[in-house]
Amino acid sequence: MFELIPIGLVHTNIKDEELHQKGSVDGIIEIFPEFKEGLDALNGFSHLILVTYLDRVGVEDRRTLKIRFRHLQRAGVPLNVLPEVGVFASDSPHRPNPIGISIVEVQKFDEGFIHVRGLDVYDGTPVIDIKPYTPFRKVQNINVPEWFSKISSYLNREP
Amino acid sequence: MFELIPIGLVHTNIKDEELHQKGSVDGIIEIFPEFKEGLDALNGFSHLILVTYLDRVGVEDRRTLKIRFRHLQRAGVPLNVLPEVGVFASDSPHRPNPIGISIVEVQKFDEGFIHVRGLDVYDGTPVIDIKPYTPFRKVQNINVPEWFSKISSYLNREP
Repeated sequence: MFELIPIGLVHTNIKDEELHQKGSVDGIIEIFPEFKEGLDALNGFSHLILVTYLDRVGVEDRRTLKIRFRHLQRAGVPLNVLPEVGVFASDSPHRPNPIGISIVEVQKFDEGFIHVRGLDVYDGTPVIDIKPYTPFRKVQNINVPEWFSKISSYLNREP
Repeated sequence: MFELIPIGLVHTNIKDEELHQKGSVDGIIEIFPEFKEGLDALNGFSHLILVTYLDRVGVEDRRTLKIRFRHLQRAGVPLNVLPEVGVFASDSPHRPNPIGISIVEVQKFDEGFIHVRGLDVYDGTPVIDIKPYTPFRKVQNINVPEWFSKISSYLNREP
């Protein structure tokens, strides 16, 4: 068992339902004062990797190993396009360790507060780490399975 | 405090010193049998986001907030090019929550064992999550600070 501590919080002031519809929103990453020094020299990176602990995921949901993206029906994806897949082949919050990885675009650094675009987590989600998004994180040639391409063709975002 | 559980292990059979020199190596991600179902439909993704718990990082190291990339001197980067930066502006394992994020290239799926390229963690490191690397993870236009570009010009990899 490994123990993590919150180093900050995500603030979006956006209701859950609105986030579900939009997929991602603007907001502020607050880093608690005792960890602020760790942000030194981060200024200049246009994008960050935000690691969060998805604290709304309960003990039962952490036992989930297969999902079906049912929520995407609301976004217009037909049910027959939505296969059942393993949680590790998805971005589902329901997984053994509910860790969120968001790639966000920095709008402004303001001391311990980072204004960003592209937050796909609920208002109030605890932050556990921040890493710079560097050219080494960008893979040029990638492949995805056909089921993933099919779903993506109905959306403009991560399924 | 948030609790994570190991879902697998990284196997590289590579000594620490060799990893330091090379930066990344080939190896196998083992997912424990009780979590194997979560890998369904992962086949077809060429790259994965591997989330690890860097278990060699001790309690004291988790208090680190500033680092200086001193180890890069061995890789030929002059000391005067190495600024002191906050841990969140770096990929240092010394940080409040020692979470590793590696983007690895799949060579072969073999049941609960995934053969990959690009492992930058020690042999035996616990795995806590796997997510597919999708086109949405690839940011087209990014900026990095000058200090980062300068260091990168001496290396072919993540500082």
